[in-house]
Amino acid sequence: MLFMVEMIVQIPQSLDADLVAKIKLEEKEYSQKLQREGKWRHLWRVVGEYANVSIFDAASNDELHTMLSSLPLFPYMQIKVTPLANHPSSIVQE
Amino acid sequence: MLFMVEMIVQIPQSLDADLVAKIKLEEKEYSQKLQREGKWRHLWRVVGEYANVSIFDAASNDELHTMLSSLPLFPYMQIKVTPLANHPSSIVQE
Amino acid sequence: MLFMVEMIVQIPQSLDADLVAKIKLEEKEYSQKLQREGKWRHLWRVVGEYANVSIFDAASNDELHTMLSSLPLFPYMQIKVTPLANHPSSIVQE
Amino acid sequence: MLFMVEMIVQIPQSLDADLVAKIKLEEKEYSQKLQREGKWRHLWRVVGEYANVSIFDAASNDELHTMLSSLPLFPYMQIKVTPLANHPSSIVQE
Amino acid sequence: MLFMVEMIVQIPQSLDADLVAKIKLEEKEYSQKLQREGKWRHLWRVVGEYANVSIFDAASNDELHTMLSSLPLFPYMQIKVTPLANHPSSIVQE
Amino acid sequence: MLFMVEMIVQIPQSLDADLVAKIKLEEKEYSQKLQREGKWRHLWRVVGEYANVSIFDAASNDELHTMLSSLPLFPYMQIKVTPLANHPSSIVQE
Amino acid sequence: MLFMVEMIVQIPQSLDADLVAKIKLEEKEYSQKLQREGKWRHLWRVVGEYANVSIFDAASNDELHTMLSSLPLFPYMQIKVTPLANHPSSIVQE
Amino acid sequence: MLFMVEMIVQIPQSLDADLVAKIKLEEKEYSQKLQREGKWRHLWRVVGEYANVSIFDAASNDELHTMLSSLPLFPYMQIKVTPLANHPSSIVQE
Amino acid sequence: MLFMVEMIVQIPQSLDADLVAKIKLEEKEYSQKLQREGKWRHLWRVVGEYANVSIFDAASNDELHTMLSSLPLFPYMQIKVTPLANHPSSIVQE
Amino acid sequence: MLFMVEMIVQIPQSLDADLVAKIKLEEKEYSQKLQREGKWRHLWRVVGEYANVSIFDAASNDELHTMLSSLPLFPYMQIKVTPLANHPSSIVQE
Repeated sequence: MLFMVEMIVQIPQSLDADLVAKIKLEEKEYSQKLQREGKWRHLWRVVGEYANVSIFDAASNDELHTMLSSLPLFPYMQIKVTPLANHPSSIVQE
Repeated sequence: MLFMVEMIVQIPQSLDADLVAKIKLEEKEYSQKLQREGKWRHLWRVVGEYANVSIFDAASNDELHTMLSSLPLFPYMQIKVTPLANHPSSIVQE
Repeated sequence: MLFMVEMIVQIPQSLDADLVAKIKLEEKEYSQKLQREGKWRHLWRVVGEYANVSIFDAASNDELHTMLSSLPLFPYMQIKVTPLANHPSSIVQE
Repeated sequence: MLFMVEMIVQIPQSLDADLVAKIKLEEKEYSQKLQREGKWRHLWRVVGEYANVSIFDAASNDELHTMLSSLPLFPYMQIKVTPLANHPSSIVQE
Repeated sequence: MLFMVEMIVQIPQSLDADLVAKIKLEEKEYSQKLQREGKWRHLWRVVGEYANVSIFDAASNDELHTMLSSLPLFPYMQIKVTPLANHPSSIVQE
Repeated sequence: MLFMVEMIVQIPQSLDADLVAKIKLEEKEYSQKLQREGKWRHLWRVVGEYANVSIFDAASNDELHTMLSSLPLFPYMQIKVTPLANHPSSIVQE
Repeated sequence: MLFMVEMIVQIPQSLDADLVAKIKLEEKEYSQKLQREGKWRHLWRVVGEYANVSIFDAASNDELHTMLSSLPLFPYMQIKVTPLANHPSSIVQE
Repeated sequence: MLFMVEMIVQIPQSLDADLVAKIKLEEKEYSQKLQREGKWRHLWRVVGEYANVSIFDAASNDELHTMLSSLPLFPYMQIKVTPLANHPSSIVQE
Repeated sequence: MLFMVEMIVQIPQSLDADLVAKIKLEEKEYSQKLQREGKWRHLWRVVGEYANVSIFDAASNDELHTMLSSLPLFPYMQIKVTPLANHPSSIVQE
Repeated sequence: MLFMVEMIVQIPQSLDADLVAKIKLEEKEYSQKLQREGKWRHLWRVVGEYANVSIFDAASNDELHTMLSSLPLFPYMQIKVTPLANHPSSIVQE
């Protein structure tokens, strides 16, 4: 079951630089783990913004929320979720 | 080069039903032709709306505009284009 | 799996009054069928508006879209879907 | 008398971590007390956000405001209240 | 129990002038009946707009919706309802 | 001459607690003085928000601005003013 | 007492061309009468739009609403009124 | 003196097809005349929309409004004008 | 050449009180100098807000930007500029 | 391939003044380097704002994102990118 997830990152100026570096590293590792598991199906950068457009594959709303709220950057992101369905004109079922 | 394209369809009540059916059929054929050519990479329905989220692969902005403005439903759609770049945490280059 | 669904009804002035009455009757019957099946869990009127707030229980995004796009009033409604998850402070699992 | 209440939590970075933990614990206890009393009828997490959608049952606007403004997280939340009425197509009176 | 009700009137050009005159007359009579009953406590014109700001006194959300949806102009109005509570600095209880 | 005034209070976290208590006390006293003088005709709490809806009676725009900008909480409020006129369907002149 | 009044004109396509010409002529005459009386103090075109920014001088909110709602184009305009006060840095009282 | 001008075209369905073709032809001719005169400095299509972004060079606000309101498509466009100034980091004066 | 300029002042809490007083004094002096030169034609307070509506007369966009960016409060203001043209119904050329 | 890029600069009060001066200098140098290379085709100041409108020429979305995210002021800017295509009425191909 697919969802479009749009994430905008807003890290406060006051956060310690080392802490920020550590969080970003953990974010990358966690993100790549989910990608390898096939849960985080696509991850694109929005040109000119500290933001991404992603496609998640989750078995349920609960699983999706658990994945998103476990992101190390979760406290510093604005996230918008759009549930997706199969399109009748699509040549593939995804 | 990838772009997220969000399309909302708004067909006026006053349009002739046969004409609408014909346009929708042509839209489907044209859409599937672009999908088979690898230009229209993903096509998903937004749940609860007469709208879709799509990923296009175009060689240039001009090519993308030509594809979109050639859609039979183009005069009846509100379209928003977001240019996408490779994300440093993505495990694939797409 | 629960979803909040907000529907705003906008029936064009130009629609035939008998047709409108027929569509509303079919909408009511279809809505009550889904309620009896436990799919449409709650249905409330927004005070002062021709609109409702609903809670749907669907096995998947595809099932939810099929239910919503089958509503007789679907062509005349603006619909917004919000996926819901279990809340850690809730005393029930619903 | 039912109300939809949408709450978005925004705790400032500068707040002491122990204080935050204490407030969240009190919030949970107070929330569960209201749920057990039947005042806070439903409580759902919005997927991907530090936010909830709730249904409250209050005898009056004054009682609802007293409940909401007594929430330990009240100073750190953005709250939107929508009064609900019985829907003519609903198969239950709630 | 008080509610602020903001109404914006948008009568379609295509409506028959005699019908419009009749609806407006009925609206005025119904409005004045509710005012005399103490249900519609205040009614003010927004300067420069075909709109009003009103204060309603209703025993319940259901009663308020019944009053508003019975307005002859209801199909041609955009209505926003804000529930009001007693203010701790107010020198009267109203 | 009546005006609807909507006030949203946003006191910064960083403000000293004693100072905040003092300002709120002065706000209440000043507000009640204006109410007793008949200048601040109505004062209601918006349910679920640190906000109010008020009706002011002022002899001129200048007098209204003087009253509002003299509020002790003025530097911490977002204020929106809507001029009101007599409504032709109102049964009273107010 | 001064007010900024912003008017956006939206004449429906379906209106008879002769009627539109007549209304515009009456609008101009009425506007110039109010200007000569000193009530409509300034009238500027917003560049690139069928819209204007105006400054009105009215003895009361009621007088202002009477002037605006008497404009021949009133049914075809979206109007926003902003009450103005004397500015402490202004070198004139106007 | 440069201005960014953003134009969105919205031609009503009800307009006669021959008339639309004629207006578009005149629009093109007028647009190219202004380009050749150096008044309409740049004209770009917004990808996926029936809209353009343009840069105009005008001697005054009045001249700019005259040019824009003389566009054959003016009654069917939504136009937004942004005045531009020389940027201190620009390597050219334009 | 006239421009409507709308300024909203937002001075951060953290700024030193003496510095704020000094900036406001300089702002007043600079504003009155521009008014006496006929560049800042009108200056009105928006009722209930720390904001103003102004009319500037500038020979060019560059001159206007120089005047506005030289305002001592410029770093603490949100400014919106609307170019104005002569209105065909105005009885004066201004 | 052209893109309109709109940048709004928001430097936090808390940033060290020397650091800000250094960043601005580097921003200017980097900007002028890109202009000389023909990548940053136009750069205009928005009148009255700490913002600019720019036209970039990039070989790909990735190249554009690399240029924008390398701007020394990037962490302190809000950026919006609009892809542009050739306009059929333009007398030049740019």
